Amino acid sequence: MNGSATSPELDRLIQLLARLPGLGPRSARRAVLHLIQKREQLLLPLADALAAAAERITICSTCGNVDTVDPCAICSDPRRDKATICVVEQVSDLWALERAQATKGHYHVLGGTLSPLDGIGPDDLRIADLIGRAGNPAVSEIILAVNATVEGQTTAHYITDLLHETGVRVTRLAHGVPVGGELDYLDDGTLAAAMRSRTPF
Amino acid sequence: MNGSATSPELDRLIQLLARLPGLGPRSARRAVLHLIQKREQLLLPLADALAAAAERITICSTCGNVDTVDPCAICSDPRRDKATICVVEQVSDLWALERAQATKGHYHVLGGTLSPLDGIGPDDLRIADLIGRAGNPAVSEIILAVNATVEGQTTAHYITDLLHETGVRVTRLAHGVPVGGELDYLDDGTLAAAMRSRTPF
Repeated sequence: MNGSATSPELDRLIQLLARLPGLGPRSARRAVLHLIQKREQLLLPLADALAAAAERITICSTCGNVDTVDPCAICSDPRRDKATICVVEQVSDLWALERAQATKGHYHVLGGTLSPLDGIGPDDLRIADLIGRAGNPAVSEIILAVNATVEGQTTAHYITDLLHETGVRVTRLAHGVPVGGELDYLDDGTLAAAMRSRTPF
Repeated sequence: MNGSATSPELDRLIQLLARLPGLGPRSARRAVLHLIQKREQLLLPLADALAAAAERITICSTCGNVDTVDPCAICSDPRRDKATICVVEQVSDLWALERAQATKGHYHVLGGTLSPLDGIGPDDLRIADLIGRAGNPAVSEIILAVNATVEGQTTAHYITDLLHETGVRVTRLAHGVPVGGELDYLDDGTLAAAMRSRTPF
């Protein structure tokens, strides 16, 4: 026994849960005891949901989203605007934009950012697929919704260069003051960008 | 869609994971994406481990420990000292004492503490079972390893009164300076208790 429950089954469950982001050994032990106490309401449904996910979840071959169907629900939704493709780094970014209902267009998940130091080049991301989709005459705008980090912006510039030949319109998210944000807590770069992009009141 | 993934299966998985202690909606979303990326190494094993736990985990009818067998591995281990029973509030406390290899005796999990305000009385805890076990002539010592909280100590006093008639020896964990602890950060009660219980050097 290497420091957890007194049964090997529970030990294994604790070790697996402890590998989830945001959980460590201590919180995994608490989670397991909580699961055992809530057997009907939580343990059984969670086991079923995980088994269903393991069996059915797939990656959309068009946009890189995760779903139980391929193409995903967004790619196959006729109400979606086929003319715009919103490019994100990760599926979590796609989810965030969907929660905000920020776009009615389609998505394209890159799967990360260019990072030569980590050995991540253009071939490791879904960039060639994006160029192919952008070549479709029905697509008129590519929105680069990558993170405002050095890696994100580097990737955005690289993609913009490649898209230049296709003639498609390339846009990016605005920089500015977060809604509800206080100026005093903002960094200089954001304040300067918000000032440059000021709009009529 | 109430703010998570774009598929109902993933939405349900996120909602279930978010109900674990230590996880919220955001970390549950991260956990699900992590699980999908680590399908073979984490998602499938975790689904199996949860299903196995749901099927096999039971509560030891003797001591209240959780295990896949009843009586549990500790209660049925012949190398364990049958003469001492260590009383704890929760299974997590039992696990902590086992990790510390603090006792070679048996355990008794109360399942909580007396708490009149929350409507938890003696009948809601495994106290009658404990009195029954303490009446066994083979048992010579009851170690009260409850938390050093008001509720824990109240429960300890209640149990001690009940055990008085059995004539069994009742002990409790020592108060004192935690190993590796700094005096300057300790509360007055602990320092005073450590001074009272000082030992020859």
